[in-house]
Amino acid sequence: MRSLICTICTLLSLSTATHAQQKEFSGGDYFLVIHGGAGTISRDRITAETEAAYREKLTEALKAGYEKIKNGESSVEAVIAAIQVMEDSPLFNAGKGAVFTHEGKNELDASIMDGATRMAGAVAGVTTIKSPILAAKAVMEKSGHVMLTGKGAEVFAKRAGLEIVSPDYFWTKRRWDGLQKILKRDSTEVELDHDEKQTYVPTVKNDDDKFGTVGAVARDRNGNLAAGTSTGGMMNKKFGRIGDSPIIGAGNYANDQVAISCTGWGEFFIRTVAAYNVAAQMKHLNRSVQEASQHTIDEIGELGGSGGIIALDKNGKIAIPFNTAGMYRGAIRENGEIEVSIFK
Amino acid sequence: MRSLICTICTLLSLSTATHAQQKEFSGGDYFLVIHGGAGTISRDRITAETEAAYREKLTEALKAGYEKIKNGESSVEAVIAAIQVMEDSPLFNAGKGAVFTHEGKNELDASIMDGATRMAGAVAGVTTIKSPILAAKAVMEKSGHVMLTGKGAEVFAKRAGLEIVSPDYFWTKRRWDGLQKILKRDSTEVELDHDEKQTYVPTVKNDDDKFGTVGAVARDRNGNLAAGTSTGGMMNKKFGRIGDSPIIGAGNYANDQVAISCTGWGEFFIRTVAAYNVAAQMKHLNRSVQEASQHTIDEIGELGGSGGIIALDKNGKIAIPFNTAGMYRGAIRENGEIEVSIFK
Repeated sequence: MRSLICTICTLLSLSTATHAQQKEFSGGDYFLVIHGGAGTISRDRITAETEAAYREKLTEALKAGYEKIKNGESSVEAVIAAIQVMEDSPLFNAGKGAVFTHEGKNELDASIMDGATRMAGAVAGVTTIKSPILAAKAVMEKSGHVMLTGKGAEVFAKRAGLEIVSPDYFWTKRRWDGLQKILKRDSTEVELDHDEKQTYVPTVKNDDDKFGTVGAVARDRNGNLAAGTSTGGMMNKKFGRIGDSPIIGAGNYANDQVAISCTGWGEFFIRTVAAYNVAAQMKHLNRSVQEASQHTIDEIGELGGSGGIIALDKNGKIAIPFNTAGMYRGAIRENGEIEVSIFK
Repeated sequence: MRSLICTICTLLSLSTATHAQQKEFSGGDYFLVIHGGAGTISRDRITAETEAAYREKLTEALKAGYEKIKNGESSVEAVIAAIQVMEDSPLFNAGKGAVFTHEGKNELDASIMDGATRMAGAVAGVTTIKSPILAAKAVMEKSGHVMLTGKGAEVFAKRAGLEIVSPDYFWTKRRWDGLQKILKRDSTEVELDHDEKQTYVPTVKNDDDKFGTVGAVARDRNGNLAAGTSTGGMMNKKFGRIGDSPIIGAGNYANDQVAISCTGWGEFFIRTVAAYNVAAQMKHLNRSVQEASQHTIDEIGELGGSGGIIALDKNGKIAIPFNTAGMYRGAIRENGEIEVSIFK
């Protein structure tokens, strides 16, 4: 009986959301767009309570980024502020809420790109940096490099004065339980061994437990764009796997025309060079941000991949295409009006 | 007196090389193009003996790759065969001849992409895999992922049956002396510390000692393209720095139109998404492989970067633009005719 009532509540709440969604995310006056991951986030897999929690946190992230832009700060600062709210929350697969690797560790990746200068920074496979997106910014501004990895990146972040935490900081019950569930399932599948005839390709399934990433794209009062992406990677990942999030051009890219952040099955976003793919179509073919982003998601879908893209152009126009059941997403206009959505 | 004679010998040898160069690398019937790194490889910095050694090894690499294609094997196999010859030689900054990190280690990166399927594989920061390009191929074919890093990548390579060596295998006197020289010079420069006001940007200079990478692009009898890149990274690199070589889209890319491998100051190749940049111009703007590659090198130059690109299109046309003093490079035609060059 309780279950039935909950279902009715959820349906009521969702019909409102669907209605609102039809009017939203249009026009060209956006300052900031964020995502909190794409996946099988369908109405029957999320309670009204959980939905409310995500909506609240997405709203908080939008407000944090908007505050920076309103105060005349750069799009880079807005991206950092918005992403840090999501990194600090256990709801998203980034920072605090990162999923576990096969070995039961949390290995985090992040990247940032400043569209005005096309400077970029990224960290990959870090385990002790509280805010990976802040580390990516430090790499961009202070290292002379674009991408730092593992222990080396952690030494750099510490010397740059960033907050270092114990790896335990990233332990959450929800993610630990998620790993145990998947380990149980995977134990029945083929194990990597020396037999050349075996296929080692894991039967990776695109479900919400495995994917999810956060990202933000912003436009500041000077018209400069920036993109940032932060992730805990793929649940149960093995062998130091790195996805698209810390790879400039794949999971993240910005220039003076458009800023892009991606989420989804990272391998497909790398192979299609997804983020730069959007920018290249706009630059070379004069495609709109909507057309270019949709074409890229379609290309990913044709290869068998799934996920979503957020993109914001220099005129404040946005695109949020995705080919999954849902995507945590939100945007804020120049006038402060906030829109948040989860489902299709 | 001996030095004067050597100089004369070198000049004689080089004037012939320059003459030959003017006629070479034209037409559209190439099967395989390779590079062994770009940098300040000018005539006054290389002896005739060293030049001959490089020419011989480049020729050997071309023949090894050509043999595969002639026998009806895939462009992927040709790329692997050519790169392995260069990885096994101490002459190039890849495999055996890898430069040292700041901490005196050899950390290797490699990537490969199959243009027919747009499948890709890469390893980064590995220290015990004899042939990183072979590991990249194993990642592409057997891991279900695109990019594996560090110890995890080494565990994967071992399980996939690849040859594992002691890190000492990569120690060479030439590279060790090169590191000592640079460490002495860098000790007078600003050290990374906690002072936020300090700039941490290293005064990286683009000299031949710091850069260099090997790569190959091939077209097989079925018209399929492939690209591979392998490197020891940047000499004296710190903090687990990763350059463009293992990044699909940046240092390496292939589709059904073109295959590209890059070498040079990796950070600029990442920021310009160099390899895919070439492919996107050809796809969207119908630019020739020469125009697209030259535009990309020009874009890198405008940002302050330097290096070179090898690109081979589906019709066997090639481009080898570079904005450094020299680039170790070679190509082989369908009829087996070999051309090798070093200087501008």
